[in-house]
Amino acid sequence: MNLIMSTAPQVESSNFQAPTWQDIVEAHARIAPRIHRTPVLTSHSLDAMAGAQFFFKCENFQKTGSFKIRGAANAILSLTGAEAAHGIVTPSSGNHGAAVACAAAWRGVPAYIVMPKNAPKVKCRAVESYGGKITFSEPTITSRQENSARIQADTGATLIHPYDNDRIITGQATAAKEFLEEIPDLDAVITPVSGGGLLSGTCLAAKGLRPSIHVFGGEPSRADDAYRSLTTGTLQSIDSSDTIADGLRASLAPRTFAILRQHLDRVVLVTEEEIITAMRLVWERMKIIIEPSSAVAIAPLLKPSAIAALHLPARSDGAPPKFGVVFSGGNVDFSSLPF
Amino acid sequence: MNLIMSTAPQVESSNFQAPTWQDIVEAHARIAPRIHRTPVLTSHSLDAMAGAQFFFKCENFQKTGSFKIRGAANAILSLTGAEAAHGIVTPSSGNHGAAVACAAAWRGVPAYIVMPKNAPKVKCRAVESYGGKITFSEPTITSRQENSARIQADTGATLIHPYDNDRIITGQATAAKEFLEEIPDLDAVITPVSGGGLLSGTCLAAKGLRPSIHVFGGEPSRADDAYRSLTTGTLQSIDSSDTIADGLRASLAPRTFAILRQHLDRVVLVTEEEIITAMRLVWERMKIIIEPSSAVAIAPLLKPSAIAALHLPARSDGAPPKFGVVFSGGNVDFSSLPF
Repeated sequence: MNLIMSTAPQVESSNFQAPTWQDIVEAHARIAPRIHRTPVLTSHSLDAMAGAQFFFKCENFQKTGSFKIRGAANAILSLTGAEAAHGIVTPSSGNHGAAVACAAAWRGVPAYIVMPKNAPKVKCRAVESYGGKITFSEPTITSRQENSARIQADTGATLIHPYDNDRIITGQATAAKEFLEEIPDLDAVITPVSGGGLLSGTCLAAKGLRPSIHVFGGEPSRADDAYRSLTTGTLQSIDSSDTIADGLRASLAPRTFAILRQHLDRVVLVTEEEIITAMRLVWERMKIIIEPSSAVAIAPLLKPSAIAALHLPARSDGAPPKFGVVFSGGNVDFSSLPF
Repeated sequence: MNLIMSTAPQVESSNFQAPTWQDIVEAHARIAPRIHRTPVLTSHSLDAMAGAQFFFKCENFQKTGSFKIRGAANAILSLTGAEAAHGIVTPSSGNHGAAVACAAAWRGVPAYIVMPKNAPKVKCRAVESYGGKITFSEPTITSRQENSARIQADTGATLIHPYDNDRIITGQATAAKEFLEEIPDLDAVITPVSGGGLLSGTCLAAKGLRPSIHVFGGEPSRADDAYRSLTTGTLQSIDSSDTIADGLRASLAPRTFAILRQHLDRVVLVTEEEIITAMRLVWERMKIIIEPSSAVAIAPLLKPSAIAALHLPARSDGAPPKFGVVFSGGNVDFSSLPF
């Protein structure tokens, strides 16, 4: 096993030091008793369509309905008693908020969740079901940050950033750690990318366990800041976005950008139509509920030409490439489906 | 292990002899290489809601999207070459039709499927995707039977009744056989009931493996022929029905009625609203796609008073009752959801 520690990224003009493999191992030990080890599913019909061997890590079956509980649990269970005492505040488009509310309830402290007012109702109800207190903001990063800062000042709560936080990143990394432990010879792994917590954690864990693996991010064209950041080499942002992938409306942060620059192979963009088609296809063929953000991970891979364009090395067994796809969540508002 | 053979039902004024345990074992051996051994899932939130321990046999993940492939494969793979040569004809509201088309394709013979013209489009597309040839009939049993008879006369195809057929029944029985093999101490098992192939097969397999088990059928109030047949002791029929559970619009047949009279503990009726609520609940909490007919099996069990009303004996371990629920299929027309 290779240690990420030996290939820690050196980011220009920054003292940033990426989390180590040991950090991921400790995060996994910390959260494993609380979370599900989610199943890995396959689909003959999707394999046949793309000419690939797909393996789907089903974080839609995870506690709170998404991978976000991994990072939130790791961050909140790591806090000292004094840090946790006045509660947690965080901005979130939904799944991270539910995860923070759930993990804060495990600690017995309040959770203040700042959500954009256009967040799906099902995600608001989820936050409330775990006892989280919601403040609605405008659907812009600026408005969310202002509201979070105000609550922090008023309550003394500890701010947990949804992804620009090492313990969030190492928590999210545990999904790829489980994935590679179960399917060790994956040629590539792909996750959706928004703020980059899941994708940067996936880079650290996947390349830590298997240095030759390729890691890709799927991103909506309508929220393409990660693509632009990695293409230009300068952190780009979007201040608002109307993609149907409601979990992917955030922009990279310094920590996640640094890790992706070091380790990520490529961001692949998808249209809204491709997201909807992929989501419906998974529902119909696999009979599982994935949310639009999850569909962004499989949408770029559904035809042989798309697989070929990724230029993966041929497998020694001559078989089609083995692709690990992380289905990030399954929280869908059934009253406003796109089909 | 107890053999069903030793408790074969003696039906009054009939020469009917129910299939034996050995028939079920042979059916399972015949079809196991072709079908999925579907997973059994659990849900903490549904358990907490009802005060029960639920286990869900996920035939929505089965090949062709429903349990129907079990019976169809068993029946069609059992035919002689001469019997199969001119193809298969069958009336079906959808899932049985897709299963027959799939199993006929395995045999390399044509499949003629007579479907009601109000069948969901997704089920028509599924039949066609396996190469089945559809004839549309009026949505009545009479019209379907007339069309089937005409095709049989025109083509020389062999009629395979969707449930009044021992090999269909023993094929469907293999789902409960797998279920009890995986969770041997179930106190009860429930399936939806329409023509009764799945439920009668479940009676034979479940009581064959565990004579003390209780077997229940869930049935829409709007298609309550099984409830009325078992209450009156005389085979009742519905000639058409508009329940949202589009897979449950058929009536019991002599074979299935005889088995249910002998072995079934009770039919529990559910309203359309209860079906829709249960379906949505499973989608939201379990993140899996079940069709309305599947929801009919869990809909009657979602509160403690409903569980209590079934008067199951207390478990020796003091735990809540262990309920096996068969999710029969997952073929849903997403363009006409009831929520």
